[in-house]
This record gives sequence, structure tokens and C-alpha cells, in this order.
Amino acid sequence: MRLATLADGTPDGSLVLASRDGTRCLKAPVSNLLNAIENWDVLEPQLAALAERVEAGEGEALDPARLLAPLPRTWQWLDGSAFGTHGHLMQIAFGLPPVESERPLMYQGMSDRFYAGSADIPFLDEADGIDFEGEFGVILDAVPMGVTPEEAAGHIKLVVQINDWSLRAIAPAEMKTGFGWVQAKPACSMAPFAVSPDALGAQWTDTGRVALDLVVERSGQPFGHANGAAMDVGFPELVAHAARTRDLVAGTIIGSGTVSSPDYEQVGSSCISEVRAIEMIASGAASSPFLQFGEEVFMEARTRDGWAPFGTIRQKVVPA
Amino acid sequence: MRLATLADGTPDGSLVLASRDGTRCLKAPVSNLLNAIENWDVLEPQLAALAERVEAGEGEALDPARLLAPLPRTWQWLDGSAFGTHGHLMQIAFGLPPVESERPLMYQGMSDRFYAGSADIPFLDEADGIDFEGEFGVILDAVPMGVTPEEAAGHIKLVVQINDWSLRAIAPAEMKTGFGWVQAKPACSMAPFAVSPDALGAQWTDTGRVALDLVVERSGQPFGHANGAAMDVGFPELVAHAARTRDLVAGTIIGSGTVSSPDYEQVGSSCISEVRAIEMIASGAASSPFLQFGEEVFMEARTRDGWAPFGTIRQKVVPA
Repeated sequence: MRLATLADGTPDGSLVLASRDGTRCLKAPVSNLLNAIENWDVLEPQLAALAERVEAGEGEALDPARLLAPLPRTWQWLDGSAFGTHGHLMQIAFGLPPVESERPLMYQGMSDRFYAGSADIPFLDEADGIDFEGEFGVILDAVPMGVTPEEAAGHIKLVVQINDWSLRAIAPAEMKTGFGWVQAKPACSMAPFAVSPDALGAQWTDTGRVALDLVVERSGQPFGHANGAAMDVGFPELVAHAARTRDLVAGTIIGSGTVSSPDYEQVGSSCISEVRAIEMIASGAASSPFLQFGEEVFMEARTRDGWAPFGTIRQKVVPA
Repeated sequence: MRLATLADGTPDGSLVLASRDGTRCLKAPVSNLLNAIENWDVLEPQLAALAERVEAGEGEALDPARLLAPLPRTWQWLDGSAFGTHGHLMQIAFGLPPVESERPLMYQGMSDRFYAGSADIPFLDEADGIDFEGEFGVILDAVPMGVTPEEAAGHIKLVVQINDWSLRAIAPAEMKTGFGWVQAKPACSMAPFAVSPDALGAQWTDTGRVALDLVVERSGQPFGHANGAAMDVGFPELVAHAARTRDLVAGTIIGSGTVSSPDYEQVGSSCISEVRAIEMIASGAASSPFLQFGEEVFMEARTRDGWAPFGTIRQKVVPA
């Protein structure tokens, strides 16, 4: 199934089932996705039945202008950093020593607002080093403390595509404190459709990875198309890591971190900082600037036959 | 005014105005504190009028067994570390170099659950190094991105007392990653009453600090009574730091970090790790163990005449 949230004046919006082609929708029997995920086992069969009906041609026209993030706010956002190439390049970009850790990397970010995939994104200052990070995420039902990765896999109910906006002029200073990021990580954006693992078919792998190319463009120019399958650890391991000492509330989103590939010369990158690190390696200096006001970011994960399960992120950076 | 939340089977509980002596309460004209803080400017005069009525003798008996955290869950918890002595001693305790930062230290923690001040607190493993951290916090209405400390002060609507549970065997490894804490910071606890700054009188200082001794006991033994006035930066500065690159959602809680004093030989500490660092300084080795299952933690901020505005935290550590 493919879920979307329509603007209705409330903070959480109205949940609908969307057709695979994105043209039609049917109202869900629950007000919003946060309520749905809190009662997923009961609702899932009803939602699946509605998904079949909308696919068979029922429903009304889906107005793309009304699409919010599928989960416009939630109680918890824990973002991993599961692509080793990204971690390696970011150390170079930030001028920091290698991260010492044998465990998955993860931080807690702001979850009270996820921007719509079509929203203009306001920032106070270009000098903060405005960057995007293309990634995948999973939405969980309630997960008890101490689950194994095998148990965690069963709590992954939906998959989403995220742009984790980042401010690179602030990030290294916050990392040096050991306290993690606050100012360097403002609100993220989410592509409009949350998709069940079964609807992704073979593109949701047995090991809990999204085997899709994430196509990224910057102001109309190709930027990257790295594949989500290259995670060093899969989502089930990230979920188990997050739940090691806490119950995870229903609606928790776990992020993959920036999609990245060791073949970056062929497939490009999913954030500007990586490109700057690659430039540093090649020539000793970064030449690609961070985003300026008015620039546009496009992100779309695609199957081989061109389907974009999560829809499209297309956003302009604007002054706050 | 003094607000409390009564258990009613919903996640957010029922909001009441509590008398200064904690024996009586009157139902608030809004379902819960999260809803109240979203509409504070409209509701505040009504809440203040009810607070006067409950103080004058109206209301029903307040059942202490029904008291939850005043804000049992919220969208955002950003915890500072504003007591320099605590920071200094924690570097010694963790065996880490001094934190490099000219700005306030802050991390984002889990906000989907704050335990009641009387709840048993479940942990999986004593070997994780179970510790408490006594601190103060402030609850904000909506704060726009980029506010000054002067503007931020006006958004501080309520003051609370928090026990920030911490797992010390995990914390240094997470700090070294630069990503901050996830596993080392499970859910916090909150004392039962949220108090408006005006109700604290002179104990809420002009510079936005809580000038109260925080009395801490471990399993019935005196542990500390450091004063909240010793913050290196006040709450308004912490709020402005948090809002530098993001709007702060209504209901955001900003924490002071562990209350600590350079006079620790006289006033003791508000967490075990500090005591262990002091032992290391004195004798080269820490001797105080972290908490074992069955131990009890007591925390109560008190005025000179013995009033405890936030009520009492008294909790037992139990196996999950």
C-alpha cells in the first residue's frame, strides 16, 4: 500500500490510500498516519483492502498541491549513518579524525515538523552552509526495549524518502562537543508517499534495505543516483540499536543516513559535502558551493522501469 | 500557578490547577498541558483565575497516586549543560578531553515519554551504569527561529524539575562519535508540578535561573543540595541557542543540565558520575557504584521555608 497525507488545516492532516500512479486516492478509516501507526495491527487489513480498491480504479482525484509529508510530525526521529562511504567522506569534508565506533552511528533529530516534498524551505543565513542529504527511512509501530534485529524487522511498517537538511558551517563545531547536532540539523523534508515494504517488492531486500537508485538533481543539473542497498547495516539492525535502552514509541522514524556509494565517480552523491570532500581528495580544495537562496533540490527514488514509489521531493531554498 | 496532570487513561492525562500545599485541585478548561501550551496566551488568564480559586480553598482533593509528569510527552526535549562544574567533572569521569565549544552545550533527547515522579524506572542491565541527573527545565510556547535571548525570555511559560536518567557505561562511546547520545539517554522523569515563573517569586531570577537548592538523596542518604542559580548561561540564552536555526514547537522543554556547584565539597552533587570524578581527583579511583536494582532516588527543590514548588521525585530502579 501507498499512503499519503492531505492538508486539511490540522497539524497531522488527513490520511489517504493513493494509487500506484498517484492520480487517485481513497480516504483512510482513521484520521491521520500517527493514529494509524499506533493501532497498526488492527487497521492494516482495512488499509490493504482500500489500497486494492484504489488500484482497481475507485477513489477521487489526488490533488498534488494538497500533499503534506506522509507523517507531518511525530514523536521521535532517530537518524542513522549506515553508508560507510558517506561517513568517510564527511570526515574529510569536516576536517575531523575518523569516528571511533564499532556500533551503528545515530543521533536524535527534530521530529515535530517534516516539510512537504514540495514546500519552500526557509533558512536564516546562506553562510550556515545549506546542504541537502538524500536518504531513506522506516516508520515503526511500538517497539519494546531490547529487541533483536530479527524482532525489529517485524516492526517496520512503512518506508519513506527523506531530505535531511543540514547546515555544514555549524556541524563540525557541534560534533566536537560530543553532544551531537542541534543547530546543524533543522527540520527535514519527506517525499509524499509512505510505502509498505511489500509494495516495494524485491526493492525491499531480505536484509531490510531499499534497493532503489536515489536520483538527485541540484537546480536542474544531475547530482547523483546512488543505490540504497549499500547500507553497512540494514534497517533492522538500526532499529535494534535505537531500542537498546528505550521503548520506541509508535510513529518513530529511523533514517538510513545519506545514501552513498564507493562508486561515487560513476553514480555521484546525495549531498554537497560529499562532493566537496571528493574535490578535496582530487585537487586539495573544495570548489562546489553550498546552496544559495533560490536554488532547487530534486530527489526521487526510482525502480528500473521508472516508477517513483515515494513520489518526488522538489524544493526551493528561500530566506526565512 | 501550579499545574499538574492526572492519569485518566489517555497518553496526555488531564490538566488541573493545584494548590500551593498540593492537597487540592481544580480541573483546567483544556484537556491537557500540551494543548494548553499551544494556546497559552488565550488560556493563561483563565488558568491564573482558577489558580486563585484553588488557593482560596475551592476544588477537590488531589490524589498523589494519580499524578503523572505534568507533560507526560511532548514534541521536543533539548537538554543543555549549563553548569560549568558539571561539565568539568564529567570530562574527568568519562576520561575525555575538555569539550571544545564557546557556545552553550545542548543535545536533543527523547520526548515521547516523561515518567511520573513516583514511577518505578525499568532498566535492562545494571552494567550499563545507571545514574540520575537532577536538573531544572522550562516549557515554552511556540518560539520563532532566530529569537534573541531577550525575546526568548517571554516564551518561558512554566518551570519544571527533571531527573535525566543516564547510562554511564555507554555515554563516553557515544560522545566520541560526535553524534551525541541515544542509548545513553533513556526517558527522563519529571516532578509532578509545573510552576509559572511568577509563582516562584524571587526564586526565578531576572536572568532566567532557578535559585533553589535541589535536595537529592540516594537510597535514603543525603547526596546533594546544589543551587540552580549557578548556571553559566541562563534559560533565555539556552532557548535562543536552540532556536538559532529552527522554530521551536509549542511544548518544547529546554533543560539546564545537571545542577552543580564549585562548592561540591560543601553541597554535594546531583549525579553519581560527579561524585566518582571527585573521588578520582582525591584518590585516583572512583569508589561510588552506580545504581543497583532496588535503589531509590529522591529529588526535591526547596525554598528556604521548606516549600517544594515542583513536588517530589521519589523513584525506584527496577529490572525491565
